[in-house]
Amino acid sequence: MNEFEIERHADPALSDPVLIEGLPGVGHVGKLAADHLLDEFESEPVATVYSEHFPPQVTVDDGVTDLAGAEFHALDADGTDLLVLTGDHQAGDGPGHYRLTARFLDIAEEFGCERAYALGGVPTGELIEEYAVVGAASDEALVDPLEDAGVEFREDEPAGGIVGVSGLVLGLGGRRGLDAACLMGETSGYLVDPKSAQAVLDALCDLLDFEVDYGSLSERADEMEEVMEKMQEMETAQAPTDDDLRYIG
Amino acid sequence: MNEFEIERHADPALSDPVLIEGLPGVGHVGKLAADHLLDEFESEPVATVYSEHFPPQVTVDDGVTDLAGAEFHALDADGTDLLVLTGDHQAGDGPGHYRLTARFLDIAEEFGCERAYALGGVPTGELIEEYAVVGAASDEALVDPLEDAGVEFREDEPAGGIVGVSGLVLGLGGRRGLDAACLMGETSGYLVDPKSAQAVLDALCDLLDFEVDYGSLSERADEMEEVMEKMQEMETAQAPTDDDLRYIG
Amino acid sequence: MNEFEIERHADPALSDPVLIEGLPGVGHVGKLAADHLLDEFESEPVATVYSEHFPPQVTVDDGVTDLAGAEFHALDADGTDLLVLTGDHQAGDGPGHYRLTARFLDIAEEFGCERAYALGGVPTGELIEEYAVVGAASDEALVDPLEDAGVEFREDEPAGGIVGVSGLVLGLGGRRGLDAACLMGETSGYLVDPKSAQAVLDALCDLLDFEVDYGSLSERADEMEEVMEKMQEMETAQAPTDDDLRYIG
Amino acid sequence: MNEFEIERHADPALSDPVLIEGLPGVGHVGKLAADHLLDEFESEPVATVYSEHFPPQVTVDDGVTDLAGAEFHALDADGTDLLVLTGDHQAGDGPGHYRLTARFLDIAEEFGCERAYALGGVPTGELIEEYAVVGAASDEALVDPLEDAGVEFREDEPAGGIVGVSGLVLGLGGRRGLDAACLMGETSGYLVDPKSAQAVLDALCDLLDFEVDYGSLSERADEMEEVMEKMQEMETAQAPTDDDLRYIG
Repeated sequence: MNEFEIERHADPALSDPVLIEGLPGVGHVGKLAADHLLDEFESEPVATVYSEHFPPQVTVDDGVTDLAGAEFHALDADGTDLLVLTGDHQAGDGPGHYRLTARFLDIAEEFGCERAYALGGVPTGELIEEYAVVGAASDEALVDPLEDAGVEFREDEPAGGIVGVSGLVLGLGGRRGLDAACLMGETSGYLVDPKSAQAVLDALCDLLDFEVDYGSLSERADEMEEVMEKMQEMETAQAPTDDDLRYIG
Repeated sequence: MNEFEIERHADPALSDPVLIEGLPGVGHVGKLAADHLLDEFESEPVATVYSEHFPPQVTVDDGVTDLAGAEFHALDADGTDLLVLTGDHQAGDGPGHYRLTARFLDIAEEFGCERAYALGGVPTGELIEEYAVVGAASDEALVDPLEDAGVEFREDEPAGGIVGVSGLVLGLGGRRGLDAACLMGETSGYLVDPKSAQAVLDALCDLLDFEVDYGSLSERADEMEEVMEKMQEMETAQAPTDDDLRYIG
Repeated sequence: MNEFEIERHADPALSDPVLIEGLPGVGHVGKLAADHLLDEFESEPVATVYSEHFPPQVTVDDGVTDLAGAEFHALDADGTDLLVLTGDHQAGDGPGHYRLTARFLDIAEEFGCERAYALGGVPTGELIEEYAVVGAASDEALVDPLEDAGVEFREDEPAGGIVGVSGLVLGLGGRRGLDAACLMGETSGYLVDPKSAQAVLDALCDLLDFEVDYGSLSERADEMEEVMEKMQEMETAQAPTDDDLRYIG
Repeated sequence: MNEFEIERHADPALSDPVLIEGLPGVGHVGKLAADHLLDEFESEPVATVYSEHFPPQVTVDDGVTDLAGAEFHALDADGTDLLVLTGDHQAGDGPGHYRLTARFLDIAEEFGCERAYALGGVPTGELIEEYAVVGAASDEALVDPLEDAGVEFREDEPAGGIVGVSGLVLGLGGRRGLDAACLMGETSGYLVDPKSAQAVLDALCDLLDFEVDYGSLSERADEMEEVMEKMQEMETAQAPTDDDLRYIG
């Protein structure tokens, strides 16, 4: 295998497509949101990117393995063409993040993307009642339309900047002339957070003028709440003691 | 030294050989199983792979050092030619895992391997009574014959995917057209587990129609049980206090 | 993106310029000092260095993202031309530190720098009453003039050597014939330390014969003292218990 | 700077020289022993190796900085030419260990070395009364002469193999046809151990038929014992509480 291997599945002609990035991150918000778009619209896989910069592993689905990678799907969201990038992994090394993102942007450019939304979460450290969406943009001119869609811009937030592929979609993409924004749903940061993903999708729907049903996300959110309740019950009981065995070579 | 150095020891003509990979991993199950094959059948070393992607170290055997590497041995298992890959190390860096596995697959291809079994363990976190073998395959068509041999396929298992060379034998091998399966013996994950290795070998014997004696593995399993009993006795006594010395430069 | 991308903003003719390096480090002393020079003198951005060796992230300023990088500014400090290197990041990997510093020195050479001061902090582990500045130099001949400016040279200090870009400005710069010195303000090492930065700037002013107003640094120092007092009050109250939630995938 | 920069200081004609490697490691035994040879014999620096694979740092000696590197010195030990490799650092990354050791061996080859001794320590976890020296060799034929010099060969020791440059001097050197042995002084592993270094030098003296005075090593050993006694006294007093300050950005 070379440093990168890009497998093309289809070459649809897209009209002014928008790149949507949703790889794993805080609260899995971006990935949940991107996956939900693939669930709700009819989508077509167009390319898979494999790389030695992904962790050295396969995922297993119904017993069949899938090499770590990231996938582009094309879909038509009520008349807006989206090129959705999702997957199960970020890069495993720092330069790898730069190199992978550069390849992702190459592919988006080939399909004609001039705009991009990187989806993610911003950790608050607290349980959220009202899910705000915090924004960041590669260019100042993008801020007003985002605010019109309810995205909040806050001084000094996110405090630690934006890390990983989402950050570099703006950082490297912006340097290439891509109009790129990051939509970050507030999330406690402790749990996979479907409600935060819904808030992010709400903003995206507003910005790109499409609608999406949240049924399956709501179910997932209900499941998470049950998990949390069980955990709180378990914590009242005594914590299990560590197994006393140690690894012997 | 170059990034890789491959030392050829012999070039036997193998008939439809099957690649068996058993490098160190969870419970050392894969390595124990592969080493047991080398112990029980007459085997011939055919190639050693050295690489800067292995940890920078030598093992010492009877005072003589051996550079970190991985070895291929050829053996005839009741009429089935096996090309067994084993060693003491995985790669030390992520891209190194990809690059090493690619070299391993190159060598297997040169010998004509079209099938591969990656042997390993799957951690359960609990002591095991009945050692099941969990499977994963590079292709859906491989699942049925594996199930016929008693290998279990479970939804969402192994949950974390398969990491390291075993995972990539399926992930990279599958992309090359290799029919590759992973046989993972259940193991607590805390101990070197010869019984799990035996379960994996049982499945392999069934799949490839050969027989193997488990005498030496059983002895090793008995040793492990003694070790465990001693540990449990020791734990009832007071834990030794840490030596109070600290390192002074 | 290539391994490095250097964006030129201006090409001023500088007269015998002095390189001043102030990247993040112990107590943020070097960065505070370098940033204060940019605040107090009229400065012109001349070059930005981007690299895959920086962490994969963007900073966000008023909602607009900035790719991780380092910047050179030129300024005239009472008749002495300074080329000030600052930024928000060190390299993310060891070889990256060497490669980034080499690029920084290339740029400084192009502008004609023959002298360099790397600004930083030296941790004492204790709160500081009198802020001494400890020195180190790429060449023995540089020690006397530094001592004349009140910089202290102490046997076996800093004990751990000088790590990161500051160290390599002296180590790699010295090998290129650059006269390079490191000015390290004593600092507890626990807090961002504007007072230590002021001590470092005092020494620099003395060495390069310019003056600077410390108003804004003093304000920042006062803010830090308030923060410390609040923390000490909080510590008398009971520490908040950890949130009991855990991350669930 | 390139990946490696080798600075030549002299090109003495050496007669059948023996490479002695003593870089930092367990108990600093190897480095202490190699440095002691440089102290006790008249030595000439012949080459310094700089590399981005060393940690990004400078050491400071009397206020003057020294870029991380490793040095070769030539010396005549009672008629035996030694090429002594020492320094303050091991490599910072795994492939770097391989690449640095390969360069070291290149230089040793240029000077005509056909034998090498890697000096180091083997941790016992206990305070040592009698300092044995444990051996390992790149070739079985080297074992007997080492045993004749009192070096012990023990089954399964050192259990974890030999890591770092010392290990690779045997592993890579042996593959090049170098006769390489490792002399490992037993040491608790908790302290810089001049007594262990003396034991290693004793074995080396015997093997290469030279004599060395241990005065300065004994002084250092006495200093270490004083340090230990003070530590034991301090531990009877109450441990200091952690400073309550935390780092605030």
